Amino acid sequence: MIEIKDIPNFINGNWVSSRSEKFLDVKNPATQDILGKVPLSTNKETLEAIDASYLAFNDWRRTPATERIQYLFKLKTLLEENLTDLAKTITIECGKTFDEAKGEMRRAIENVEVACGIPLMMQGYNSEDIAPGIDEMMIRQPLGVSAIIAPFNFPGMIPFWFMPYALACGNTCLVKPSERVPFTLHKITRLIESTGLPKGVFNLVNGAKETVDCILEQPKVRAISMVGSTPVARYIYSKAATYGKRAQCQGGAKNLTVVMPDADQDMSVKVLADSAFGSAGQRCLATSLIIMVGDSVDWFKDSICEIAQNRKVGYGLETGIEMGPVISPHNKNRIEGLIQKGINDGAQVLVDGRGAVISGYENGNFIRPTVLDKIPLNSDVFHTEIFGPVLGLIHVDSLDIAINIINSHVYGNMSCIFTSSGMAARKFRYEVDAGNIGINIGVAAPMAFFPFSGWKESFFGTHHGQTMDAVDFFTQKKVVIERWPKEWSRKF
Amino acid sequence: MIEIKDIPNFINGNWVSSRSEKFLDVKNPATQDILGKVPLSTNKETLEAIDASYLAFNDWRRTPATERIQYLFKLKTLLEENLTDLAKTITIECGKTFDEAKGEMRRAIENVEVACGIPLMMQGYNSEDIAPGIDEMMIRQPLGVSAIIAPFNFPGMIPFWFMPYALACGNTCLVKPSERVPFTLHKITRLIESTGLPKGVFNLVNGAKETVDCILEQPKVRAISMVGSTPVARYIYSKAATYGKRAQCQGGAKNLTVVMPDADQDMSVKVLADSAFGSAGQRCLATSLIIMVGDSVDWFKDSICEIAQNRKVGYGLETGIEMGPVISPHNKNRIEGLIQKGINDGAQVLVDGRGAVISGYENGNFIRPTVLDKIPLNSDVFHTEIFGPVLGLIHVDSLDIAINIINSHVYGNMSCIFTSSGMAARKFRYEVDAGNIGINIGVAAPMAFFPFSGWKESFFGTHHGQTMDAVDFFTQKKVVIERWPKEWSRKF
Amino acid sequence: MIEIKDIPNFINGNWVSSRSEKFLDVKNPATQDILGKVPLSTNKETLEAIDASYLAFNDWRRTPATERIQYLFKLKTLLEENLTDLAKTITIECGKTFDEAKGEMRRAIENVEVACGIPLMMQGYNSEDIAPGIDEMMIRQPLGVSAIIAPFNFPGMIPFWFMPYALACGNTCLVKPSERVPFTLHKITRLIESTGLPKGVFNLVNGAKETVDCILEQPKVRAISMVGSTPVARYIYSKAATYGKRAQCQGGAKNLTVVMPDADQDMSVKVLADSAFGSAGQRCLATSLIIMVGDSVDWFKDSICEIAQNRKVGYGLETGIEMGPVISPHNKNRIEGLIQKGINDGAQVLVDGRGAVISGYENGNFIRPTVLDKIPLNSDVFHTEIFGPVLGLIHVDSLDIAINIINSHVYGNMSCIFTSSGMAARKFRYEVDAGNIGINIGVAAPMAFFPFSGWKESFFGTHHGQTMDAVDFFTQKKVVIERWPKEWSRKF
Amino acid sequence: MIEIKDIPNFINGNWVSSRSEKFLDVKNPATQDILGKVPLSTNKETLEAIDASYLAFNDWRRTPATERIQYLFKLKTLLEENLTDLAKTITIECGKTFDEAKGEMRRAIENVEVACGIPLMMQGYNSEDIAPGIDEMMIRQPLGVSAIIAPFNFPGMIPFWFMPYALACGNTCLVKPSERVPFTLHKITRLIESTGLPKGVFNLVNGAKETVDCILEQPKVRAISMVGSTPVARYIYSKAATYGKRAQCQGGAKNLTVVMPDADQDMSVKVLADSAFGSAGQRCLATSLIIMVGDSVDWFKDSICEIAQNRKVGYGLETGIEMGPVISPHNKNRIEGLIQKGINDGAQVLVDGRGAVISGYENGNFIRPTVLDKIPLNSDVFHTEIFGPVLGLIHVDSLDIAINIINSHVYGNMSCIFTSSGMAARKFRYEVDAGNIGINIGVAAPMAFFPFSGWKESFFGTHHGQTMDAVDFFTQKKVVIERWPKEWSRKF
Repeated sequence: MIEIKDIPNFINGNWVSSRSEKFLDVKNPATQDILGKVPLSTNKETLEAIDASYLAFNDWRRTPATERIQYLFKLKTLLEENLTDLAKTITIECGKTFDEAKGEMRRAIENVEVACGIPLMMQGYNSEDIAPGIDEMMIRQPLGVSAIIAPFNFPGMIPFWFMPYALACGNTCLVKPSERVPFTLHKITRLIESTGLPKGVFNLVNGAKETVDCILEQPKVRAISMVGSTPVARYIYSKAATYGKRAQCQGGAKNLTVVMPDADQDMSVKVLADSAFGSAGQRCLATSLIIMVGDSVDWFKDSICEIAQNRKVGYGLETGIEMGPVISPHNKNRIEGLIQKGINDGAQVLVDGRGAVISGYENGNFIRPTVLDKIPLNSDVFHTEIFGPVLGLIHVDSLDIAINIINSHVYGNMSCIFTSSGMAARKFRYEVDAGNIGINIGVAAPMAFFPFSGWKESFFGTHHGQTMDAVDFFTQKKVVIERWPKEWSRKF
Repeated sequence: MIEIKDIPNFINGNWVSSRSEKFLDVKNPATQDILGKVPLSTNKETLEAIDASYLAFNDWRRTPATERIQYLFKLKTLLEENLTDLAKTITIECGKTFDEAKGEMRRAIENVEVACGIPLMMQGYNSEDIAPGIDEMMIRQPLGVSAIIAPFNFPGMIPFWFMPYALACGNTCLVKPSERVPFTLHKITRLIESTGLPKGVFNLVNGAKETVDCILEQPKVRAISMVGSTPVARYIYSKAATYGKRAQCQGGAKNLTVVMPDADQDMSVKVLADSAFGSAGQRCLATSLIIMVGDSVDWFKDSICEIAQNRKVGYGLETGIEMGPVISPHNKNRIEGLIQKGINDGAQVLVDGRGAVISGYENGNFIRPTVLDKIPLNSDVFHTEIFGPVLGLIHVDSLDIAINIINSHVYGNMSCIFTSSGMAARKFRYEVDAGNIGINIGVAAPMAFFPFSGWKESFFGTHHGQTMDAVDFFTQKKVVIERWPKEWSRKF
Repeated sequence: MIEIKDIPNFINGNWVSSRSEKFLDVKNPATQDILGKVPLSTNKETLEAIDASYLAFNDWRRTPATERIQYLFKLKTLLEENLTDLAKTITIECGKTFDEAKGEMRRAIENVEVACGIPLMMQGYNSEDIAPGIDEMMIRQPLGVSAIIAPFNFPGMIPFWFMPYALACGNTCLVKPSERVPFTLHKITRLIESTGLPKGVFNLVNGAKETVDCILEQPKVRAISMVGSTPVARYIYSKAATYGKRAQCQGGAKNLTVVMPDADQDMSVKVLADSAFGSAGQRCLATSLIIMVGDSVDWFKDSICEIAQNRKVGYGLETGIEMGPVISPHNKNRIEGLIQKGINDGAQVLVDGRGAVISGYENGNFIRPTVLDKIPLNSDVFHTEIFGPVLGLIHVDSLDIAINIINSHVYGNMSCIFTSSGMAARKFRYEVDAGNIGINIGVAAPMAFFPFSGWKESFFGTHHGQTMDAVDFFTQKKVVIERWPKEWSRKF
Repeated sequence: MIEIKDIPNFINGNWVSSRSEKFLDVKNPATQDILGKVPLSTNKETLEAIDASYLAFNDWRRTPATERIQYLFKLKTLLEENLTDLAKTITIECGKTFDEAKGEMRRAIENVEVACGIPLMMQGYNSEDIAPGIDEMMIRQPLGVSAIIAPFNFPGMIPFWFMPYALACGNTCLVKPSERVPFTLHKITRLIESTGLPKGVFNLVNGAKETVDCILEQPKVRAISMVGSTPVARYIYSKAATYGKRAQCQGGAKNLTVVMPDADQDMSVKVLADSAFGSAGQRCLATSLIIMVGDSVDWFKDSICEIAQNRKVGYGLETGIEMGPVISPHNKNRIEGLIQKGINDGAQVLVDGRGAVISGYENGNFIRPTVLDKIPLNSDVFHTEIFGPVLGLIHVDSLDIAINIINSHVYGNMSCIFTSSGMAARKFRYEVDAGNIGINIGVAAPMAFFPFSGWKESFFGTHHGQTMDAVDFFTQKKVVIERWPKEWSRKF
């Protein structure tokens, strides 16, 4: 599956081995087997990639949008043809199940499809006769070099919230994958290469924080798109601004969800278990806290525990597995520590997933689904993004209190409600301070023709990824006022 | 005209005198007469204004957009009824001529008119059946408290690039006028008060840098709109980002303009003199450098000097005056110093406006129109924003060279071309790196239904002021995914 | 209130008495008092009005949109200042209550407000580099002369679904009011005149079918907007097409509404009574048939009868009156005949409003609220638009059957559901074939920033009135492709 | 190339031979060889196709747009893979050159690309809180069955102005190709079949006027898209309206073009010869009349004659051929008759293309390029669409006169100007009454992301083909107003 060992960079259309002396091991989180080595590229290499992007810009920008999208149409076909291989690669280096990985790639492809509509999406607007004989128009033009800093949890999807739009709008693009999961983007870049995209339009540089800093400090880079934890998002947003760039930085989340007494019982339990434990809880739209309102506790609590206990944990490539490992031993330790901290702070363990041993994968970073009840509102497990398969429960008497708790939280990525009442749904939608709202939905991930929103500490910036938000982010507006006065006519 | 002496703040619907011990004199730049005192409000006062804005938000946001715009319709009427008084106030404290001041207020009113269209502009979008039975929608909701930091050169217009939209979208608003010209906004606030706008929705705090820092550091303030010099714009953009806010910061400009040999001669000379010397060169769209291509030098150079020499300089309230003073003795000194620096660096003085003495206004900060020829490309007068009535000339052989010079400049606010050739115009529009382009236009100020663009060091951010850019800036997108599955139906 | 007796036409900025020999009496429907005479203008007069519109077009089109909307801003102010007088006029000639008439004028004003946003709404779009060096843009330009044929039931509102947009887009406009209620539009035209609108831009011609035919046959008229009964709408749509025009023709309605067992009881009864009997049932969004699902019959049927019986009927200008007369004795007879026909066909009379005698208004065309139960699906009262205060009830077992009944009807103007279930609301919204859907709303009249939709036999055309639909209808798209090839450059 | 002889219909996913007794021969216009037979289907067959479309609608409409577009992505790939075969088929049955036919298919594919963006294009819009607690949204829903009536001159392209959008929006579709060129659409339908599109979603019925009438009279058909001559367009538009349908009907053209003295000489002659004689003049964007302004006659007239004389006429599949035959002997006779009529009316023949004999293709319907000078403004050759390789010249003194002549013409499809002056271009663009404007463009065919416009007698309707116009045409707007009042809450 993963045939190469040492990951090269892709600079100006060439695959080049890093000249760095610093490499990190990339490991299969289910086995701790070393899959290969990823370079922490030197700043010189990063600068070469930026220069390649910069030099390729002029021609790429002058390539009509109708031609630029032909590469995306090809990429869609290639991604579909290679879906199985890409999904397996994701499972191997990132840990999620094969089905989850395929779903991830589907969302990536959806963004390519939407970006194929750039000729329409990139249109400007115009007014005739703003004054007699004077016309005005707004033209969208690309920025130049854009950079994408990708996280480890969706190596195949998240770059696609930005990259297809950046390219389709006429920008050149530099992507830095997470150093923990470099293989997926490596393979995707191979496919991009196969589309025949001109040299330098798309570049890939492996690295970690030093690479990010180098990118941030370079004036040739005009725009930064990033997804990661809130402290890193805040750091990058602030530093990008200091260097005058535009930035869109997506951070952490807690995704508080409400279960009302009138919700569909079987469906909500099932859907919420998938939300809490899918991808081992390592996703920015994982439900981490559920607020049970009124009597819903009666039918919800036991059921969610039962489903948590029975969830089949193991290696994501094996059949029937419902949940894989977390990304690293370090993350496993951190998560188990946060569970203990929660217990110390007063939460009750209903299901304890610590100390998981998966037969045949004894070295894997596995944690089984964990359910904590009676989460204190001033505890770490309430406030901190755990990023693991840990679900906290809270019980309140009314929807109003539930909404107050949600709105008191620093994060505002997603919030869902399960109910059969149109009134409760409308109240929730109207009042909750979160960017992505689900009504009877467990993972309210916006389609590619909607922005991937996010509010409060979950997002820094004004334009989100996907759809017209991405087009706005990756273009700059040029306003033209034009006059050709009659009296200038002499000949005609 | 200006009846009050000490400027109060307007907080939570009340006019309150500042408890500060620090006050600055506000002076008429044509006379140096003291018009009154403006407080540098204490941080405690600023926080009171922020709190008032914060507390007023919930009700204002819940006021339907159709009602919110009624205050704007009223404001439009009031601004028109008080146009003369407002324009005179601008002339008195800011120095520009009465006609220029009236034109300024016209542009302010235009923005009120456009913001009256918020019910339409603020619409979100939606898709039925993103999957069977699942719908998705994007709703625009206001941010909360927004703050506007205004510059001295357009005290009546620039706040309107932002404020009508901020309010119409359901935000509350805090404005800090320039401490040099606080009277205009004071009077405008009186009119806003007359519309019956609910308490706390609009607040006015006087102050300087300390007030700005206080605003930037407050988490309750969600958005910063600012116009000023590039160093200040960069500072505010960076600091706003550090505090997690969105910001739109407009900075300096140089507005290089090209005159082609085939341009209409009379028109281009006249229009460009107005652009260079209007508002005494103190505007972000003032043409500061003109690149004469080929033979255009023959008919352009002498004519522009003649018109510069004959421009009638004086007190803006007097009839026939075409140009007023600059804002302060300090600015006058700085501008005259830059002229001398230009001469030292090799430029030739064709018209020297230094040492101007205007009879009857001997204390005024007057500089007459100044024309410098053969501006060296590595000189300060080439690179620095002078913000005074100083026009530099450059002579080149081709449009290509002219565009190269323009694109080498750090600023990218406006750039214009004068030509009769459709080809030259298109090439210019396509290739020039500036946000506002004029074709045979001297001051390419976008109408209120276009963004006030700006590129490179002239703007930091992604959304500009005016029109849909402002709506995007002053709203956050909430994405809602909704499912009401069939099988949940039991009763019907 | 109504001071004039003989209604003049308004042609080319002049009020001119008709030279016709045919006049009709205009009567107060509450008293049968003659209010004045309305001319059936000669075709010659209609042609004069068309010619005036045609000649005024060239200058009006060349007036910038920013100037054109100034007349609308003024008109908004004038309509508000004259709201009471206009509403009283509506009550006097049309019969509805004063409150209903004021509400009507509010909706008219809303459309003026939205049309003030034309500079933004009328923008075209553009693409740079559809091929290297070739640009394309779409410009919206006005059509020329547009004509509006108004119905009797909303003399003050319905012309505003079209007219403000037609004018703001740069068209000139000819309006023919209903010959039964000419005074309201006469007064509105007086206000339009006061705005200072240039001569010929707006013209008013009184008349009936002959006038309509004359308008339809004239090639100078480019667009027809009309609201009336379905047979007339179909006739005008077809004839307009034969003469090559674009047309938007709104016809009849039945507005079947569903009451679910889980609906809010008090609210739904109250709201639906207002919908059925408001304006004496003479509106295209009056609920005429209510389908009670399951147990809802238990609490709904008696309550609606009670409220129907107690509705206070009388002269609309008197305090406390909740319902006025129908427009004419002829209409009263027709409605009473349809009630009898319904009874003959098998419906049960629960409340019989026939033979109403209103003390002091014995000559008025009054019918009291009428409720018929068990409406047979093959009866005339099921199929025919009654246009009077007659409500039919149907009882079914399930929402599915209710929707089937709705979708079997030839009309598709509005359909509402009363429920607390999000699921029922979504199913209804998704499946019902009607253009305007209400969820717990009795009169789902779209706001001015939404199209006034209508499906099936209730509407003929593609663009509705109001908002961007009106802008699309009143403009034609001009597509421009532009090339200024490099090689053509010789001089520069 | 064309393997089949008798063209079947494609109804409900099956290829079925017509049961008709009426068949027409399809001939190669370059040879008069019989290529096969096309049925004039019986009305019973047409009704079967309509019924199949009608029955397929419900499921297709409920297929999410994201799935519907997958068939279009596949169709794009298939059209590209079969481009050569399709282009050859076009040449064989329609006569145009192979290069022209390939270009035609490119434009078809572009429309498929744009329609792949339907998920975004089909979004509705929404407003929160139109009143406190009340929300409103507009949803676009498909119409049902749509029908496309195709002309002979672009058998591969014109159906794509409509069909991809109709399908992507969720409508089902019935296409009737021109009975003269049925093979191309037959082959395209084979490709559509290969995409796996569900049965009944796309249907093809062969026939002529009787088939069209049958379609027009069927209430199940909701929308008619048609391109043809103006009399037929007018007939269909009128009849569709009589049956309550929406219709978009494109008719004839004359495409008057202006050559200014300052135009690029070589380019304009070359480009205009291509426009006049390309596709043997049988296209709705063929330049048929050129107005030479002032001195342009000196360099334009002789050059265009020379290029006309030297144009290589012959069988379109042979290498180097620049122009093919016209569609039929009848059309050839008609065109030659119109040339003679022009001469009789006073025009001067500069190049006479009549009596063409092409060696090896003596039976072909060839006419060589023809140039007539001094076209009288009251002659048939001025007014009538010739639809053959006949170019008329007119000489005037000024652009104003040229524009007057253009605007006096009944057609308004396209109009172009050749000039280097921005002023002349703007004046032309602003003043000319034509829907498609070219500036230094010979065939101003809008890209697929712009509407294919057309004004005056060249178009009947309000929405054009392509892009958002097609989406507007193929959807109906449903407006939903929703209230879930707080006081209804009892449980929570």
